[in-house]
Amino acid sequence: MPEQITLYTAKICPYAHRVELALEEAKAKYTRYEIDLTNKPVWYAPEVNPASKVPAIAYGGPLVPADQPSPESVKIAESLVLLEFVADLFPEAHLLPSNPVLRAKARFFIDAISTKVTGTWYSFFRKGGSPDEFFTGLEVIQALLPPSGFAVGEYSIADAAIAPFLARAWVNLENDTGAWKEGDGATVLATLQSARFARLNQYIQDLEARPNFKATFDKEYIAESFKRRFGNLRAQAQNQQ
Amino acid sequence: MPEQITLYTAKICPYAHRVELALEEAKAKYTRYEIDLTNKPVWYAPEVNPASKVPAIAYGGPLVPADQPSPESVKIAESLVLLEFVADLFPEAHLLPSNPVLRAKARFFIDAISTKVTGTWYSFFRKGGSPDEFFTGLEVIQALLPPSGFAVGEYSIADAAIAPFLARAWVNLENDTGAWKEGDGATVLATLQSARFARLNQYIQDLEARPNFKATFDKEYIAESFKRRFGNLRAQAQNQQ
Ligand SMILES: [Ca+2]
Repeated sequence: MPEQITLYTAKICPYAHRVELALEEAKAKYTRYEIDLTNKPVWYAPEVNPASKVPAIAYGGPLVPADQPSPESVKIAESLVLLEFVADLFPEAHLLPSNPVLRAKARFFIDAISTKVTGTWYSFFRKGGSPDEFFTGLEVIQALLPPSGFAVGEYSIADAAIAPFLARAWVNLENDTGAWKEGDGATVLATLQSARFARLNQYIQDLEARPNFKATFDKEYIAESFKRRFGNLRAQAQNQQ
Repeated sequence: MPEQITLYTAKICPYAHRVELALEEAKAKYTRYEIDLTNKPVWYAPEVNPASKVPAIAYGGPLVPADQPSPESVKIAESLVLLEFVADLFPEAHLLPSNPVLRAKARFFIDAISTKVTGTWYSFFRKGGSPDEFFTGLEVIQALLPPSGFAVGEYSIADAAIAPFLARAWVNLENDTGAWKEGDGATVLATLQSARFARLNQYIQDLEARPNFKATFDKEYIAESFKRRFGNLRAQAQNQQ
């Protein structure tokens, strides 16, 4: 029986969203505490995460208000560490398969997200330029998918690791919010919706239809937050040229 | 009962060494196949690892010579994926603790190696300059260590993940093989052996005294290989200035 779980998170953050997806999938009982990333509470770094990032979990210890964390709880950070932690805490949720080969495939998929997708996306999002490396990264992911179902068949932490990034990338492309040339969001989206990415699109539909995703993704809020925080990326990128 | 395991590895490579340490610790039965990284066999990329890197494991399938891999075995790559795979295949070896919090600590330690140690080391090794970021990375690692014992108390994959890098870094410093200014190897080593790194030094002693390390680390071979492959780093770095 797991002890109390307090998740420090932020709706806009894809890394934090990973952990919310895993906790929802496990039907975990947890306290969700929203951190304003533009104005972090003074107690957050010293008392929860010295790196001052979300997500972090305070696990165990006495029941206390989330904004008064107890020194007796264990504090754990890093989204991929937390995905494994949630899988370990709730083995009956099968967030990882029991077969060692499938577990390895899930972790290899997660490694590919980190090395091929997030970096290429952020580079395009923040600096503009060519989307080709992002496309290539998504092709790697697509090639790892089985003919149907999730990353390793049944839903796993591999799916929770990628869904937040794909969902936010698509929102930014739809809203043309990024450092790319005005209108390129629609062009890139058209490529992503073409036959070249047919399997990936089916996968995204499956990810977004999942109850854990619906319970944790507020598309309007995300779109507005990105516009507010990153609406000037294009102007910045042009000024730096 | 695990199926056949063939490990494609290279003595010089710290990433591959991680997996050898885990397999030895688990007393696994496995076939070790040395890949010459300067002259890779033509079959290696197409038949074992498309990324053409070591380590990789061919798991299961019929018993075949390692240089004639069967299409029926599963091929798995990426050292950290393989550490978890070995831990999963040999649960009785306790390569990860059973307690979810300790498992999370082991994985957080591994994350710190990847983000704070390997990059700062390679930057100093290949480009020279200041060792300060490498020192800072090692202080982060040192601060994560418990007062005695291994990364999370009992030996785990966290220890297998760091030992190969520390051992090779020390060999290069001892032999002054690196892009740094001639003689700086000894100066850096003196700092690393000072009171500032007392706990880290005890940890390194413990890592190197472990039978799995003794069985897999050939110090003379490593020293000679580094001299042969990287003996001209200093000249290269100076030419680029
Ligand atoms: Ca596990």
